[in-house]
Amino acid sequence: MYVIIAYDVNVDRVNRVKKFLRKYLHWIQNSLFEGELTEADLEEVRIGLNEIIHKEEDMIVIYRLPSERSMKREVIGTEKSKMGEII
Amino acid sequence: MYVIIAYDVNVDRVNRVKKFLRKYLHWIQNSLFEGELTEADLEEVRIGLNEIIHKEEDMIVIYRLPSERSMKREVIGTEKSKMGEII
Repeated sequence: MYVIIAYDVNVDRVNRVKKFLRKYLHWIQNSLFEGELTEADLEEVRIGLNEIIHKEEDMIVIYRLPSERSMKREVIGTEKSKMGEII
Repeated sequence: MYVIIAYDVNVDRVNRVKKFLRKYLHWIQNSLFEGELTEADLEEVRIGLNEIIHKEEDMIVIYRLPSERSMKREVIGTEKSKMGEII
């Protein structure tokens, strides 16, 4: 499946969330990642995020799509990361 | 169509972008909006955003989906805004 993840977490945890998500997804811009994941990977992502964040204060939104073709992406301004750069 | 917009703009323009997008979409969390838009509304949104942002420095990603049912949304942590609260 294709996944878009956007996070709004306390500044103390931003870098940990970013570093963690880079292991699974492409970085798009500040607080935004995308990529193809298996169900098993997504479950790992959920578990990892739950360990990092403080639930009372932080929020992470995960959008699941059947595939990348389920949506059209359009960028206004400067692309901060090229989709090819998988880390 | 259903639209998800995530922005990464200079702090000087964050509030203008947020205030502008609130006219068209639901605020989900910091730098993230969602909602149903017509093609005409989306064109207004593009024009408005292009007027506000500095293209060399800011980035806005617009995801277009056929409908809200094209994706599944999942939240980890605290929902900062309820979908019902349209402004």
